Amino acid sequence: MASYNLFLLPGDGIGPEVMTEVEKVANFLDQSGVARFEMDRGLVGGCAYDAHGQSISEADMEKAQAADAVLFGAVGGPKWDAVPYDVRPEAGLLRLRKDLALYANLRPAMCYPALADASSLKREIVENLDIMIVRELTGGVYFGEPKQIIDLGNGQKRGIDTQVYDTYEIERIGRVAFELARKRNNKVTSSEKRNVMKSGVLWNEVITALHKREYADVQLEHQLADSLGMQLVRWPKQFDVIVTDNLFGDMLSDIASMLTGSLGMLPSASLGDVDPKTKKRKALYEPVHGSAPDIAGQGLANPIAMIASFAMCLRYSFGLGEPADMIEKAIANVLDAGLRTADIKGSLPSHISTTQMGDAILAEV
Amino acid sequence: MASYNLFLLPGDGIGPEVMTEVEKVANFLDQSGVARFEMDRGLVGGCAYDAHGQSISEADMEKAQAADAVLFGAVGGPKWDAVPYDVRPEAGLLRLRKDLALYANLRPAMCYPALADASSLKREIVENLDIMIVRELTGGVYFGEPKQIIDLGNGQKRGIDTQVYDTYEIERIGRVAFELARKRNNKVTSSEKRNVMKSGVLWNEVITALHKREYADVQLEHQLADSLGMQLVRWPKQFDVIVTDNLFGDMLSDIASMLTGSLGMLPSASLGDVDPKTKKRKALYEPVHGSAPDIAGQGLANPIAMIASFAMCLRYSFGLGEPADMIEKAIANVLDAGLRTADIKGSLPSHISTTQMGDAILAEV
Ligand SMILES: CC(C)[C@H](C(=O)O)[C@@H](O)C(=O)O
Ligand SMILES: CC(C)[C@H](C(=O)O)[C@@H](O)C(=O)O
Repeated sequence: MASYNLFLLPGDGIGPEVMTEVEKVANFLDQSGVARFEMDRGLVGGCAYDAHGQSISEADMEKAQAADAVLFGAVGGPKWDAVPYDVRPEAGLLRLRKDLALYANLRPAMCYPALADASSLKREIVENLDIMIVRELTGGVYFGEPKQIIDLGNGQKRGIDTQVYDTYEIERIGRVAFELARKRNNKVTSSEKRNVMKSGVLWNEVITALHKREYADVQLEHQLADSLGMQLVRWPKQFDVIVTDNLFGDMLSDIASMLTGSLGMLPSASLGDVDPKTKKRKALYEPVHGSAPDIAGQGLANPIAMIASFAMCLRYSFGLGEPADMIEKAIANVLDAGLRTADIKGSLPSHISTTQMGDAILAEV
Repeated sequence: MASYNLFLLPGDGIGPEVMTEVEKVANFLDQSGVARFEMDRGLVGGCAYDAHGQSISEADMEKAQAADAVLFGAVGGPKWDAVPYDVRPEAGLLRLRKDLALYANLRPAMCYPALADASSLKREIVENLDIMIVRELTGGVYFGEPKQIIDLGNGQKRGIDTQVYDTYEIERIGRVAFELARKRNNKVTSSEKRNVMKSGVLWNEVITALHKREYADVQLEHQLADSLGMQLVRWPKQFDVIVTDNLFGDMLSDIASMLTGSLGMLPSASLGDVDPKTKKRKALYEPVHGSAPDIAGQGLANPIAMIASFAMCLRYSFGLGEPADMIEKAIANVLDAGLRTADIKGSLPSHISTTQMGDAILAEV
């Protein structure tokens, strides 16, 4: 039986609670003979800072590098608002993305029919929505240098960030998008602001050339990022796969997830290239939601996004499509049966806890 | 009677049509003795490029500099997709903003009750929405240097843009936001990505200090730009004034306008500082919508955003609050009466033309 080494980084806030539910699911699959899962836990974010003054330790970075997949919870909270920039909770996540070269962030935005009414959008606009946002994750303004604040004297400072993309970075993320589209509805929408940004001009040029050269069978369209934001709100079902840069991807994927009424329910995968030697692909899986420090430790968190992230892990890292489908089906069933955690209970009189939701999904699986 | 010199830059696509309706309104106010309006027309965008190879001529830039206010239509269209970057249609608009130092872009997002059902959002989420987005317009990644594409050889290029903000730029836009909030619901939400951008760290620091020093009576909150995008979709009525940078403002204001179901109906004002000598403030007014080349010249365009932009001009540039109110009331009345141009007709059987809409508003005025 195949054996996989999972490195769990629950992080802060509700991270540990939702991670516990994933451990249950993994243990169950392990006992059912689907695969062996060896799990180890590390620290990232505010809790890592509290423990050793860094947002992630070198030892945990090494474990992340060595793991078959990393499962990540969420980081941050008001407690760490004043910590120095370089060791703020987010720095741990950004370092993981960069050092593991996880350049492809897959963010599905789908609307569970049972939750369509929870959306602020009209039901017919979002019902059965299923789009995939492919966000470039290791480049752009997140990592470009210079990135600094300069003291100009006279009480004036200058804050600088650098948006930078090279041809190869755009090509490899474009490829991920086109490949995914071929397995879906065969349409890619590429987005930038080429009318004001040179990196956008290059982005557009590289995607257009790649399409012509290797993916002419896939439908390709280009939309300016501001206009794409509008179209996502107006009529999201026009999209299949959206490919965009790190910063636009951050904003657009959050908006897309909010449309579905299922925020707190959506998973994501961050993937690197397959290593030609080991044949392994570095990968990190995390929910789209944040650490929600206000509800942490009260059993109020919704573990669905974290569990769905584990399903993505089974599919993309281990080729275990069947158990992944089973987990996703179990989530849909539990929702159809009317079970709700506090965040999605809407006007229902009662809700179940984090643990109860995890158990209910496990029972369905 | 006061006399004002308006410089009209209708631009491309539907720009000229909607500008014609504004001229009618201005002429009417002129004849009614509200004020004298002297109007001159220039070229900007694709039509300027066709006429003299530039997106705006030096002569027209001079007229814009000398005018009491500039009214701007819209620029661009597929016809000019392949023109060189420096003379693309948008360059004319960006030059106007930069050279006239129009750093404060005011974008109201309000929902006309008669149109609430046209929104993709549920009526209760958007009905009576009234928020004001204050977007910094002359800085950030739009204008920072270096901004270039470098050829790295081996088929590799590098696209670079620079996001840069100085303390004084953040302070002056912050001031505009706080002043507006005092006349509205006294709340400002400032937005950046301080968790990944140094310019965001500085933005947050400067707004916080300005608030403490001069505007402690106004409620201030900070939201990360990705999270703000989500909140705009989830529950937009929680906001009053939103202040943010050039790029985030571009995206967030487009999303906000789309919520209202009134895109194509929303105006904007771009303002500079008051000149201490002349006591005049440079200003440009433009609809939020684009040039819509696909419907140009067919009488299908909605002139409301352009006419509402003229109302903003009366209010902010000439202190003519009363005629501005009158125009805005006339627009609301015409909508209440069920008159619709093609873009907002929804499931109604018929619609009126650009000219008929202009005439109907004029009749109400
Ligand atoms: C936590 C933060 C650094 C991160 C980002 O901006 O990428 C988050 O918003 C996300 O989308 O994963
Ligand atoms: C036309 C374009 C350059 C412009 C911008 O990006 O600022 C437009 O989208 C806007 O919002 O006014």
